[in-house]
Amino acid sequence: MPKVEVCFSPELIHLFNLERKVVVVTDILRATSCMTAGIASGVAKIKPVATLEECSALKEEGYFTAAERNGGKVEGFDIGNSPYSYMEDRFKGKNIAATTTNGTLAITKSTAADEILIGSFLNLSTVANYLIKENKDVIIHCSGWKGNYSLEDTLFAGALIEKLTSAFGLGDDASFSAFASYKVAKNNLLETVLGSSHAKRLEKYDIKKDIELCCAIDKYDVLPFLQNGVLIKK
Amino acid sequence: MPKVEVCFSPELIHLFNLERKVVVVTDILRATSCMTAGIASGVAKIKPVATLEECSALKEEGYFTAAERNGGKVEGFDIGNSPYSYMEDRFKGKNIAATTTNGTLAITKSTAADEILIGSFLNLSTVANYLIKENKDVIIHCSGWKGNYSLEDTLFAGALIEKLTSAFGLGDDASFSAFASYKVAKNNLLETVLGSSHAKRLEKYDIKKDIELCCAIDKYDVLPFLQNGVLIKK
Repeated sequence: MPKVEVCFSPELIHLFNLERKVVVVTDILRATSCMTAGIASGVAKIKPVATLEECSALKEEGYFTAAERNGGKVEGFDIGNSPYSYMEDRFKGKNIAATTTNGTLAITKSTAADEILIGSFLNLSTVANYLIKENKDVIIHCSGWKGNYSLEDTLFAGALIEKLTSAFGLGDDASFSAFASYKVAKNNLLETVLGSSHAKRLEKYDIKKDIELCCAIDKYDVLPFLQNGVLIKK
Repeated sequence: MPKVEVCFSPELIHLFNLERKVVVVTDILRATSCMTAGIASGVAKIKPVATLEECSALKEEGYFTAAERNGGKVEGFDIGNSPYSYMEDRFKGKNIAATTTNGTLAITKSTAADEILIGSFLNLSTVANYLIKENKDVIIHCSGWKGNYSLEDTLFAGALIEKLTSAFGLGDDASFSAFASYKVAKNNLLETVLGSSHAKRLEKYDIKKDIELCCAIDKYDVLPFLQNGVLIKK
């Protein structure tokens, strides 16, 4: 029986062996929710990059640009980090280069894995069904906030583990706690996420509508994955 | 209302502001359980040190020595890391220098705090009552295993939070998950800890009796704290 492990922060991922594993990167508020919504809405490719400079430079290759720092949109880029922005008609069939505070780092730190998938509540069952079919060891890599633990990513990990329990064993202690956190929060998922430190941090940006969308389970049947440094639809 | 936060690993403690905080260091399997049992049983002072060399050198100052690496006792030292060893009659009124894989590191990384207390299930209510009386912000610093998350330390954090809820607010996302983990595990605490990765790692040392003791809630009414680099009774 394959195992599922949970890494609570990119600052801890060096303690995991990623070889021959499938890594599911999650950043519920909001990078991987954006990526899921974008790819589901017809964006052709999303290229995650670490710095604002790399993101900006990709304009010359025809990319639209998305940039967020500390929760806000960065001046001079097409969009910030709202999933609704990624769903705009003008991006259908186009490419977006994206840089965010946390989510893109978790992706770039996962490249030793066999496969990197993008997970969010929006595509929860699609991710789960794919993992069950693949039948390989899984690490759920939570993006956190500037290295620290974040509740909404943990809750996604717990929700995914709930869907995997019949086919996967719990591979570490963190998977127990992620599952426990989801059990306690699942009947009040939106309220719990709205009470998380990240949601409070973003209050000034008035993104309650974003957060509601990010907590919508199984809105899309789409599986973004990383191929040659770019996220595309599987 | 003061706040309680939880740090899941010494590798994340640099993300916390320790100033003017009380830090409760915990390493349930087994360093802080040993320290609690030892001080409760009459050990005068316990000096936590990082390396085997420092520990060994303290023999000349009349210290007994306790050394554990990777779960086992290190050759040439008086004892390893079993709480029963710390309770031996020969240590009454004496001093012990101790070095362990994880717990002593969490202590040395907490020194920017106002106060450092030693917490374990063995002195759970004593720690809680002291914190409520002090009425200052608290960080529960889990020692983990070689930098990674560990369930038994998280469960202690959750148990302590349960006792603090009427007097403290949850200060971060990790405190939510620690509390949730404890809620799910509390009716099967020993079984859950025996199923943790750390307990499995220690199986070869045949320490089930140690683990049972480490899960005994409120066996002692004692509060070890750090003063000038040495743990003594408050």
